[in-house]
Amino acid sequence: MQTKTIEEYRLNQDPDLPDCLQSPNRLFWKKDGISKISPDCKDVFKHLSDQPFLSPLIKEGEERRPLRVGAVFSGGQAAGGHNVLSGLYDALKQFHSESRLFGFLNGPGGLIKGEYEEITEERINRYRNLGGFDMIGSGRTKIETSDQFQKSEKVIRDADLDGLVIIGGDDSNTNAALLAEYFLEQGVKTRVIGVPKTIDGDLKNADIETSFGFDTATKTYSASIGNILRDSLSAKKYWFFIKLMGRAASHIACECALQTHPNLTLIGEEIAKDNRSFQDLVEEIADLVELRAKNGKNYGAVLIPEGVIEFIPEFQSMIQELNRSSDSLSEKSEHCLKELPKFIQDQLLLDRDPHGNVKVSQIETERLFIEAVKEKLAQRKSDVKFNAQPIFCGYEGRSCLPSIFDSNYCYALGHVAASLINANQTGYMAAIQNLQANVRKWQAAAIPLTSMIHMEERKGKMKPVIEKALVELDGPVFSRLSAERENWKSRDDFLYPGPIQFFGPEDLTHQTTLTLQLTPAKVLETK
Amino acid sequence: MQTKTIEEYRLNQDPDLPDCLQSPNRLFWKKDGISKISPDCKDVFKHLSDQPFLSPLIKEGEERRPLRVGAVFSGGQAAGGHNVLSGLYDALKQFHSESRLFGFLNGPGGLIKGEYEEITEERINRYRNLGGFDMIGSGRTKIETSDQFQKSEKVIRDADLDGLVIIGGDDSNTNAALLAEYFLEQGVKTRVIGVPKTIDGDLKNADIETSFGFDTATKTYSASIGNILRDSLSAKKYWFFIKLMGRAASHIACECALQTHPNLTLIGEEIAKDNRSFQDLVEEIADLVELRAKNGKNYGAVLIPEGVIEFIPEFQSMIQELNRSSDSLSEKSEHCLKELPKFIQDQLLLDRDPHGNVKVSQIETERLFIEAVKEKLAQRKSDVKFNAQPIFCGYEGRSCLPSIFDSNYCYALGHVAASLINANQTGYMAAIQNLQANVRKWQAAAIPLTSMIHMEERKGKMKPVIEKALVELDGPVFSRLSAERENWKSRDDFLYPGPIQFFGPEDLTHQTTLTLQLTPAKVLETK
Repeated sequence: MQTKTIEEYRLNQDPDLPDCLQSPNRLFWKKDGISKISPDCKDVFKHLSDQPFLSPLIKEGEERRPLRVGAVFSGGQAAGGHNVLSGLYDALKQFHSESRLFGFLNGPGGLIKGEYEEITEERINRYRNLGGFDMIGSGRTKIETSDQFQKSEKVIRDADLDGLVIIGGDDSNTNAALLAEYFLEQGVKTRVIGVPKTIDGDLKNADIETSFGFDTATKTYSASIGNILRDSLSAKKYWFFIKLMGRAASHIACECALQTHPNLTLIGEEIAKDNRSFQDLVEEIADLVELRAKNGKNYGAVLIPEGVIEFIPEFQSMIQELNRSSDSLSEKSEHCLKELPKFIQDQLLLDRDPHGNVKVSQIETERLFIEAVKEKLAQRKSDVKFNAQPIFCGYEGRSCLPSIFDSNYCYALGHVAASLINANQTGYMAAIQNLQANVRKWQAAAIPLTSMIHMEERKGKMKPVIEKALVELDGPVFSRLSAERENWKSRDDFLYPGPIQFFGPEDLTHQTTLTLQLTPAKVLETK
Repeated sequence: MQTKTIEEYRLNQDPDLPDCLQSPNRLFWKKDGISKISPDCKDVFKHLSDQPFLSPLIKEGEERRPLRVGAVFSGGQAAGGHNVLSGLYDALKQFHSESRLFGFLNGPGGLIKGEYEEITEERINRYRNLGGFDMIGSGRTKIETSDQFQKSEKVIRDADLDGLVIIGGDDSNTNAALLAEYFLEQGVKTRVIGVPKTIDGDLKNADIETSFGFDTATKTYSASIGNILRDSLSAKKYWFFIKLMGRAASHIACECALQTHPNLTLIGEEIAKDNRSFQDLVEEIADLVELRAKNGKNYGAVLIPEGVIEFIPEFQSMIQELNRSSDSLSEKSEHCLKELPKFIQDQLLLDRDPHGNVKVSQIETERLFIEAVKEKLAQRKSDVKFNAQPIFCGYEGRSCLPSIFDSNYCYALGHVAASLINANQTGYMAAIQNLQANVRKWQAAAIPLTSMIHMEERKGKMKPVIEKALVELDGPVFSRLSAERENWKSRDDFLYPGPIQFFGPEDLTHQTTLTLQLTPAKVLETK
């Protein structure tokens, strides 16, 4: 039997394209409302202050010129990155056969150092629909200093780029806006377009319905969680404490909880709002363990978002203090730290990330909760069996074969980015809206990056930032979770979504996240 | 859109059945060679000493009688268990519409306590092709004492069972043989049939080509490992130390390595043969880290079988001593223990499993190696970047939606078990052979359990056991690994198998493990 791998099948699959992107040469842009820039940002973004939103205008096109475009991956991997590049490539080549696409190597560092390679037809054809960022690599270098800006400018000028596409999260897109502004100021022709990437799902707002990678990551984690819930129900002897990747916000936890119905899900934003202490949470879990034990159930599962401890008030203060300096903790934080098991103390004091922060993802929150619940049950002199296993759903969800949703979404985002550069637009985020609908009905849009930016204190200095979208406690996703979760506590109402499917019935292959399905399509409603 | 879940699609899918099992009522059995029982076992198995192998005989059937059969899951979950039950059920009902199937609850404990429930049509239809053992649960109670044997006998008599199907690993199938012998001795009519279950892949021999669950588990782990390798290649900054579930033997590691090509794979059996010390292995990994760093690659992945430390000579002695008693360690083992990081010492001294053994699966071998490599690099005053992440591929691989292979395999095993009970055979393991071929060509067989059993010392007493099949270092699977792995060290020859597919091209959905593909089909060759 001649066999092909799943990657070989996926490589040769054309993504579906929305109607509005079917003919790149007939796609133009029209103004669609003025963005409101935060007043305190006006000084930072003199050139980008009053940018309009743009929406597609389909009309007969004129001859297009060849474009030279660079692309860079910034930050952690998210499934679909290669399709942003293939979408870019295909659109640029449709504009003009002499258009050329370049990839900066290993993240923004490659841009500063002028390390890039051409993305040729032969090369892009080896990565269509595939996972990872490995065609050109990614990195976390931040373009911050004026020296770095100048170096980037020189590289861009030398490469004679018409456009630069920055594929990244909130920080990277803030950076895209700053670069766009800087290039305008310097009279550099290079247009800068951002693309919303992060598995965390926290780069979204009224205009950006979701970031790419969230769909694939949550499906990958939900498959694992479902398997683990089924295992827990079969063996009936383990409590699984499952930590989910996703830096600050608890979107991944919400989505995975709705997909799998675990017995308890911690939501960082709710904990912060209710001002709950670590001991409160431990009490709640211990209560649940005892409640289920009374029903003969010495098993279950708790979902823990990676960033949860930053939402627990006393930990939040402690981590903020640690991020400034570990030498001068307040008495309260010192106490909080010393009360923790030794292995957690070590993890908090470990070396920091390039931004100087505690590596929250290195903290074994899942083990911390297990130890604390054990201790709590011992204090209560409870005789329930509590046999717990820590699980981390993390790195395996970032570079996977993108789901059909992320494949299509990213390919469309690449088309939008190419079209905006062709239209000489800069400082925009490429957007695709109406994502709950069939791909053909998806809508393209261009969102001024400055419309998302405000000033925030970072390490004592005011900086422009794109606010991370936290879980809205009065929003439809959390409301659904909140309405249903009580039922999941004592019952075993587990769901088992299974692995991502690429073939077969469309209701399996094309299913979007519940987060997206539950969120009203605001843009279309108002248009 | 009316949407169905993947489980709803799978529930309604009829497994493929081998030609020889298509008409249960025409399936009979003929002798096919005499088994050689180990001489020292003859006293233990007086009635089962000289059992023949059986192979199918297809002929016109006579009227069949209704059968009453009980089934029990024993030990850890493996994907496909519910299909053993559905195969049993469907075959029994084809024999006679008044046949009845019962499930003992939560493992062998349910058999001893007489806790069982009828598996009705309505009930089985909710579990066809689904993962987990949760329809009736599983457990690790061993039927050992004469009191337990007597209680089981009473339960079986009261339930008036014609047959008992024990779905388990090596220990559970040894137990099946002992029960079969005991029932014969006591004049109980109940026939006992074993079914080979374990994700570890160590219940196999010339007659049993694979145990069920190995296919799904290795595919699930390989999907994760592939994702992680791609992540490592994309971010270029992490070394992943990936521990794989699978108690003793390294079959899972071999299979996953062949599926994904990580930079290094530890194989317990090889380590034992070469008498390599822990420090040897740490040196080897540190060498690899430095070699790759020289090529600018501060990333990579190492696969570590869960049971590896039991194969490291000094650890092996220490664990054996700990399994006897932690109070009186030899000087050498005491030294070995004290040299380990504190968190590993704690894990070794933690409370034991029901068999009284160190919980090898609780030992964070992946972290142990990371810490030791760190220390080694520091000793060498090496300046390479070594940023390592521990990963555990474990519980999520046991209760997943069974692959199409495991669905079909288990359904066929259920048919064989039913047919053997109908033929009044006892003390057999149900077997399906020629598994590399198309399902239609699979062959049914009955293997005397005693043909696999020999006497071994367990806790100072000689006991009958089915030997765990270790990785054969001169076998085709390890040979392939051994021939290819040198290439995987410095290059990035990673493969990304992706998630298990249930729809679409057969070369994706019906692909078996490489372990199975590489192993010659001995039985058919000699027939």
